[in-house]
Amino acid sequence: MRKILLIGAGRSSSSLITYLLQKSFSENLHITIGDVSLELAKSILQNHKNGTAIALDIFNDEERQQAIKNSDIVISMLPAHLHLNVAKDCLNFGKSMVTASYISNEMKALNEEAIKKNLIFMNEIGLDPGIDHMSAMKVLDNIRDKGGKMLLFESFTGGLVAPECDDNLWNYKFTWNPRNVVLAGQGGAAKFLQEGKYKYIPYQKLFRRTEILTIDGYGKFEGYANRDSLKYKSIYGLDNILTLYRGTIRRVGYSRAWNIFVQLGMTDDSYTIEDSEQMSYRDFTNSFLAYNPNDSVELKLRHYLKIDQDDIIWEKLLELDIFNSTKKVKLANATPAQILEKILKDSWTLKEDDKDMIVMQHLFGYELNGEKHQIESSMVCIGDNQTYTAMAKTVGLPVAIATLKILNGEITTPGVQIPITKEVYKPILKELEENGIIFKEKNVPYFGYNPDIII
Amino acid sequence: MRKILLIGAGRSSSSLITYLLQKSFSENLHITIGDVSLELAKSILQNHKNGTAIALDIFNDEERQQAIKNSDIVISMLPAHLHLNVAKDCLNFGKSMVTASYISNEMKALNEEAIKKNLIFMNEIGLDPGIDHMSAMKVLDNIRDKGGKMLLFESFTGGLVAPECDDNLWNYKFTWNPRNVVLAGQGGAAKFLQEGKYKYIPYQKLFRRTEILTIDGYGKFEGYANRDSLKYKSIYGLDNILTLYRGTIRRVGYSRAWNIFVQLGMTDDSYTIEDSEQMSYRDFTNSFLAYNPNDSVELKLRHYLKIDQDDIIWEKLLELDIFNSTKKVKLANATPAQILEKILKDSWTLKEDDKDMIVMQHLFGYELNGEKHQIESSMVCIGDNQTYTAMAKTVGLPVAIATLKILNGEITTPGVQIPITKEVYKPILKELEENGIIFKEKNVPYFGYNPDIII
Repeated sequence: MRKILLIGAGRSSSSLITYLLQKSFSENLHITIGDVSLELAKSILQNHKNGTAIALDIFNDEERQQAIKNSDIVISMLPAHLHLNVAKDCLNFGKSMVTASYISNEMKALNEEAIKKNLIFMNEIGLDPGIDHMSAMKVLDNIRDKGGKMLLFESFTGGLVAPECDDNLWNYKFTWNPRNVVLAGQGGAAKFLQEGKYKYIPYQKLFRRTEILTIDGYGKFEGYANRDSLKYKSIYGLDNILTLYRGTIRRVGYSRAWNIFVQLGMTDDSYTIEDSEQMSYRDFTNSFLAYNPNDSVELKLRHYLKIDQDDIIWEKLLELDIFNSTKKVKLANATPAQILEKILKDSWTLKEDDKDMIVMQHLFGYELNGEKHQIESSMVCIGDNQTYTAMAKTVGLPVAIATLKILNGEITTPGVQIPITKEVYKPILKELEENGIIFKEKNVPYFGYNPDIII
Repeated sequence: MRKILLIGAGRSSSSLITYLLQKSFSENLHITIGDVSLELAKSILQNHKNGTAIALDIFNDEERQQAIKNSDIVISMLPAHLHLNVAKDCLNFGKSMVTASYISNEMKALNEEAIKKNLIFMNEIGLDPGIDHMSAMKVLDNIRDKGGKMLLFESFTGGLVAPECDDNLWNYKFTWNPRNVVLAGQGGAAKFLQEGKYKYIPYQKLFRRTEILTIDGYGKFEGYANRDSLKYKSIYGLDNILTLYRGTIRRVGYSRAWNIFVQLGMTDDSYTIEDSEQMSYRDFTNSFLAYNPNDSVELKLRHYLKIDQDDIIWEKLLELDIFNSTKKVKLANATPAQILEKILKDSWTLKEDDKDMIVMQHLFGYELNGEKHQIESSMVCIGDNQTYTAMAKTVGLPVAIATLKILNGEITTPGVQIPITKEVYKPILKELEENGIIFKEKNVPYFGYNPDIII
């Protein structure tokens, strides 16, 4: 039996574990799941004959080292800042390692030693980062192998609710960490490249500078800019590209409505609201509006943010009940962002039968033999249920597949890396396809920067 | 001769020094000016017979202690964070001390020992903080002495250009640190009280929630909220007040136009712009607008921020030359805020003959014998020239007057304090009046919160 150690049995490991347990018979695998909660690890394994659950406190050096020593390869699904001790043990005991997290500088620093010991430390091999790297590099390498010159690369990802469960006016429910959704876009201007020019969007305008995208069979979406559009410029080999943009996908109209919260100041997480516990949702809304003895909170807000009488934004706000004077916030010393999160959870929590959906689209503009071309590559993944969510599948499957391919010697180049080489992305994308995670590519007219698609 | 030591001979000490030197004959004073630059100290004294210039390095313990030991009272006009060593020496050698800076926690911690040694450490006795405390407390104490109950206190201060030198569309020039003007309002939501309700304004709306004020003989002004409206609530004895608001004064229309820079993201100081050195002003402006192959930077900006064809805002932007394609930024690795500051300095630097103006207004709403009343108290001070600016007079004179009154035993209560007691503010306000810094009080109808005065 080849022994795989999985550390951290959180929300996104369901598909990862199921994949490995299913393969355990044909591939001769034994899966050890180590989690701080033995209960959780056990409940996931459900007495599977090729699995063992162990209690593993990551801060206990002996426990951790023992478990790693006993394995042939290690998967760390811990929070990103906890990978390093695992990585150092893997170096010591000569084990390869796989994570879905952004590669840290400390992790990068282990590269030389990993190569020396012929170990693979594969990082950023979940969804985003992960599937985005692999699916983008596949098309980029194809274009460049043909002699094409890249002009434009735009890449969008989003976690949404599946169309059949999409029953609110925002066309959105929380499918991942709600706090991150409330704080999205904060912490600095979004920076990207458009036709050779650096462009900057401050937070207060981020949700008013969206781009529209269409995915066949799923209709229109919108994307707002990520802060880090230029992060993979050199890594993808796009140093001379004219347009480089990465964005987050929402359904059309979400951002324009979300901007109301930004403008009011409801997404601020830097100070606490007085008497937040006793406040009604209406009091909370009113605290961002000037006092007036005669006017309603509703009219003050409409006037302040210039919302027309028949604007759908208004219906979206009503749906969230932000003018309700009896619902209480019930959070002491809360920031505006924490209170908003609570209000949104009332409306945006997935129901028991709801399914989530992951959407990804890349646009590749390039020049070949003097002509300009564009390729659109799109992927949609819908969750099976609230255990095997689209998020769990798209994060967990590439991790699982990579682990097995490293174990089987199908991926062999050693070092601390991310999945951008053909050796890595080709076999993994192929097997993701077999598991229903499929990118559809098509040629479209070259847009370059097309002002018509900007709202 | 009584010996006064002034440490730090910066921009705001001209009126302070002149006042003390003029008094030196009748009051039998000797003024020692210690500055890191002996040249500067000498040039200010101009061989006055009752003055001595010394080179004083504040970080040299021996030099500093020697100078303090040799004096009867010490004025520190150093940056706020450098007062503490001076204060500790003053405690050791038994000298009282005066500063115009905000009182720090470290300074407060010296209170008990100062009282024990019968020393006065007077802080926050410049303009703002300083004259604002004294002029407010005078009216507040009057109202309360009559048995009035405070309902509303609003206080506004601004440094502007004098009306006779006001020759640009913004009705504004830099009269103090330009960087602070560009960064004004950043760092957290403005918080205040309106009719018993806490209100919050995020940065992105700060310049769209101004209040209008009128000062007899000087016309209309506007105020935008300071972050710290509640800072002196308890100190002024206003714990049960319904409305408490502190603001910064500009000429009407400034804030609505300034909001354009906020919305574009030009006031951001948290990241640097690529290739800033080579950029034209036009390139800088364009970096905050979407790329478009057909439209001008001008039309893109007008459309993005919905500026009407005949809106005076547009003329204000043109006046600053932000669309100029030949003027270069010439600042390497500059933040947007640094570049904006540079652009503004081209237009907003005081000319040689320009004078500045300080404007302050307080509104006091109160109830007495079942009736509501309101008092408006306003002060305008215009600079003589670029040495004896309104800023130097209003910051320096209260410091000088307080120093002399402490030295003369007219102010006697010991301890680390700010000028909010009758013993302190009465004689100082009186002498400020004799020096042309005069508050005019008048009774006006009680407004409470009057929506008609909000724009």
